Amino acid sequence: MKMTDGQTKYLASFIDELSHSGVENAVICPGSRSTPLAYLLAEHPKIKVYMQIDERSASFFALGMAKSTKKPVVLLCTSGTAAANFYPAIIEAYYSRVPLIVLTADRPHELRDVGAPQAIDQIHLYGKHVKWFNEMAVPEESKEMYRYAKNVSSRAVQISLQPPEGPVHINFPLREPLVPNLLIENLFETQHKLISVHNDGVLTLHTNDWEMLASRLPEKGLIICGVIDNKKFKEAVIQLSHHLAYPIIADPLSQMRSNIPDGHLIIDCYDAFLRNRDVVNHFQPEIIIRFGGMPVSKALLKYLSHYEDIPQIVVDNSLGMRRDPAGTATNVIYSDETIFCQEIVKHSLAKDISPWANQWMNVNAKVKNLLSKVENEIEMNEGKVVYELQKKLPNDACLFVANSMPIRDVDTFFHNTSKNIRIMANRGANGIDGVVSSALGASINHQKTVLLIGDLSFYHDLNGLLAAKMHNLNITIIVVNNNGGGIFSFLPQRDEEQHFELLFGTPTNLSFEHASKLYNGEYRKVENWEQFHQFFTESIGFEGLFIIEVFTNREQNKTSHQELWNLVNDEISKYLKDV
Amino acid sequence: MKMTDGQTKYLASFIDELSHSGVENAVICPGSRSTPLAYLLAEHPKIKVYMQIDERSASFFALGMAKSTKKPVVLLCTSGTAAANFYPAIIEAYYSRVPLIVLTADRPHELRDVGAPQAIDQIHLYGKHVKWFNEMAVPEESKEMYRYAKNVSSRAVQISLQPPEGPVHINFPLREPLVPNLLIENLFETQHKLISVHNDGVLTLHTNDWEMLASRLPEKGLIICGVIDNKKFKEAVIQLSHHLAYPIIADPLSQMRSNIPDGHLIIDCYDAFLRNRDVVNHFQPEIIIRFGGMPVSKALLKYLSHYEDIPQIVVDNSLGMRRDPAGTATNVIYSDETIFCQEIVKHSLAKDISPWANQWMNVNAKVKNLLSKVENEIEMNEGKVVYELQKKLPNDACLFVANSMPIRDVDTFFHNTSKNIRIMANRGANGIDGVVSSALGASINHQKTVLLIGDLSFYHDLNGLLAAKMHNLNITIIVVNNNGGGIFSFLPQRDEEQHFELLFGTPTNLSFEHASKLYNGEYRKVENWEQFHQFFTESIGFEGLFIIEVFTNREQNKTSHQELWNLVNDEISKYLKDV
Repeated sequence: MKMTDGQTKYLASFIDELSHSGVENAVICPGSRSTPLAYLLAEHPKIKVYMQIDERSASFFALGMAKSTKKPVVLLCTSGTAAANFYPAIIEAYYSRVPLIVLTADRPHELRDVGAPQAIDQIHLYGKHVKWFNEMAVPEESKEMYRYAKNVSSRAVQISLQPPEGPVHINFPLREPLVPNLLIENLFETQHKLISVHNDGVLTLHTNDWEMLASRLPEKGLIICGVIDNKKFKEAVIQLSHHLAYPIIADPLSQMRSNIPDGHLIIDCYDAFLRNRDVVNHFQPEIIIRFGGMPVSKALLKYLSHYEDIPQIVVDNSLGMRRDPAGTATNVIYSDETIFCQEIVKHSLAKDISPWANQWMNVNAKVKNLLSKVENEIEMNEGKVVYELQKKLPNDACLFVANSMPIRDVDTFFHNTSKNIRIMANRGANGIDGVVSSALGASINHQKTVLLIGDLSFYHDLNGLLAAKMHNLNITIIVVNNNGGGIFSFLPQRDEEQHFELLFGTPTNLSFEHASKLYNGEYRKVENWEQFHQFFTESIGFEGLFIIEVFTNREQNKTSHQELWNLVNDEISKYLKDV
Repeated sequence: MKMTDGQTKYLASFIDELSHSGVENAVICPGSRSTPLAYLLAEHPKIKVYMQIDERSASFFALGMAKSTKKPVVLLCTSGTAAANFYPAIIEAYYSRVPLIVLTADRPHELRDVGAPQAIDQIHLYGKHVKWFNEMAVPEESKEMYRYAKNVSSRAVQISLQPPEGPVHINFPLREPLVPNLLIENLFETQHKLISVHNDGVLTLHTNDWEMLASRLPEKGLIICGVIDNKKFKEAVIQLSHHLAYPIIADPLSQMRSNIPDGHLIIDCYDAFLRNRDVVNHFQPEIIIRFGGMPVSKALLKYLSHYEDIPQIVVDNSLGMRRDPAGTATNVIYSDETIFCQEIVKHSLAKDISPWANQWMNVNAKVKNLLSKVENEIEMNEGKVVYELQKKLPNDACLFVANSMPIRDVDTFFHNTSKNIRIMANRGANGIDGVVSSALGASINHQKTVLLIGDLSFYHDLNGLLAAKMHNLNITIIVVNNNGGGIFSFLPQRDEEQHFELLFGTPTNLSFEHASKLYNGEYRKVENWEQFHQFFTESIGFEGLFIIEVFTNREQNKTSHQELWNLVNDEISKYLKDV
């Protein structure tokens, strides 16, 4: 028994319109209720399908793909708890502004809330963490219904792409029979009438607002680029920085630490030196301009809190959003970030490099030099892993960084490089979940992807590795295994001996060689720096999954970080006395 | 820096009251924001703490534990997507009526929706899938606030335990510092004033309603016991069945297929013979009385639909619930199920075994004999795995069964046994997720637990195995590996060659020896029945994780099942002609 041609056509109209609206990739989890949508996605000539068994990994895989390609990715599963497994990735997509089109198959109305199998309440299943929810009509044959299906489809894609980009959820009640008729003529439209493509509007200010803003820019300005991944913006903000002679505090996820021809105004060691009270007092700004999601550095956040009375402009391309956890913004400007930079340049006069900018550059250079001492570490050390990685990464690589310690170490030890390196991380909700899958999703769009990840986060998404095997993906995974939750050693919990290892250290005593074998990966255990370099080089030329496990020690690691920060602290205080 | 004594006392009051209300076990996932609650749970003398890294596995572990102990289990995690990973297990708990106390740490109000790290909207995070949501006040010192904390705590436990039992969610906004002072005097109350313990009311009918009901019971009655796990009910319904001479259609999850001294009225092969149209026509009931969640058998569901005009009483202990996917119930009686059985016995006259009951027993016996032919299978066969398992299971074992094929095979091949075997499964939403963890959670309450699971479901929750290693749990896991989604071979999708393997077969080509090694398990690959018996016997005496992998073939499996059903079909039709 098959669906009627009309029912098939209704669902085909929806799927086809996704493609016409720009969707190219779909991640599908197997299931029965979702059968017709799965068939139609697989059958569509312009949509590439990736199967995934574990819906949680599947959804983070789609997230990584959408993040990396900057195009919405379809995510499909059957009814029941399958759909609930998407929740963490959907929340991450919502807060990190990544477009996802989540399609869930559902039981039809008569099978809801009556104890039918795999029937849960899927209406608004993801609560406030999707931009749009739509419950579809049960498939029916009529031109009006096909049009309706197309309109919902194109609207779903549009909404997902409008700033702030994010996930949308469409729920499909479906009755048996569930097999569509793929043989009907013109299943998909070859000639598409552009009924629903718009050029989306862009936020900007009135000309006189730009003029007024541009006229009020003092000498001691600072640009802070947080999490923002946009080539045009990158060019524009560098131009702005040069034009105003304002240094750019560049978070690793701002993409401002690589491939910048004239990068002298890029400040990339602030996390180390803004821990110093003298530095904070010394660098009193007159204005701060912030772009993107909050930077990783806690030292920077404290710097912002210290200067809470200084004018601080936060620029955001999405009305009503507020990325300002310290609550120190004095002015939120809703404007496309690129336009902001261009308009300010247009309306203001170019400035010369000031002592203010020079001092930022000098301190940064000095600290960079001090941090390079991490190179001398003989033991396997988490900071040095990042330091060496940066030297060895090939041009055009994507470096995906897990949360907790890795992103902090990248913040401290990954400095501005002439290579083109795209750094990515899940910084919407900063979870340790789904990172392997996110990196693998991103890998479909890069020649070479390297994931830097701790042991707990790696364990959390081991299932994600199956995608590398099933879809022949290329990735180097560097697992920094400090046997537990390394970050807690840096927090006040560490001062309590009682219950610490039980609740926070959480050693799992896992070695991941067996995980690598399970998924047909190449595996290398690193015991010294020579091996690290050798295996990393080997992995870059390798096609497939390559896991490099580096064992480190949580306590040693804390001590080593602390010593380096103390060194920076002392040297910089001395230096400032002489300035 | 530590929390004030008052803030500590506020949270300690909450945790202490959980214990006084009957909570004995807590599953904790590491995190920073949840620090004070984690410390207080670990410090409480009467609460046992289980750490888990992956929140999804953690939550299913808690679910299995609560299901098995029939006591609410606390589940704690930090803020952010960690909490979203609980969603699938919470949904399962909601639909399978399992009490869980979900505690999530949250950022305080001033850090919400301003881009702070790990801050998501946790208010009503689980939507309609918890029975109660409560947003706590930020900790404060005062007797009134301690009392408030205690009241919420005891109420949370109570609500979780009232029929229908289920999950509740309490969200805790917490400010830094996060380390509580465990040294304060009388952190927990040794002498507890019983301010909040009630004897919960039980649903029953008025006496004359019972009399009326009991007076209307015809000869040809049928009792159907679906998913229900309650010793008192088991005794009462068997007494009812004998009293009325009504056969009991016993789903494997009704616990009615084991340890029944006088079990001649138990019908346990109906899934095989109700596929036969002649049988369905032959067994026309005059009344049907149903208890518990919907049985697994689709053949039984069709039988119910066939007799939609026959009086069908559905008994449910929870007002407003409706477990009736076929919509064929003519009367829903809201009453405690045990009381229902006892009251009907009290108000009705005992009946003798009728031809109606005899024929059910005869057909059942005949079919049981036919199904036993599965024993002759020489190849590794999924039905025979269950058949042999039943023979080999030790007394007092818990058999946890995964969804999809395993539960269906148990329905067909696990027949009434004199041993005491508790059969469990996640039949709230019937997901293939979280099954390893659920079984491990259940194992803390049983001398020996055996999990029967397919390869996709096992893969889905491989992370769950870490609990066996970290908490030294005993379990035998039988993985039936047919390299993909075996159940789809039984569905209409199988008739479509195109895209079938891609979308439904989903072969992963995983062998789980490496997974076993990762978690320090014993592993055996089974190649013949002799090995199966040998390894299974070995596993029963083993302390720890023991994985037995049985490789089967999806197509062979379908054919073998089909042949057996055809045999049953032919033989029973012949038999009925002679009756």
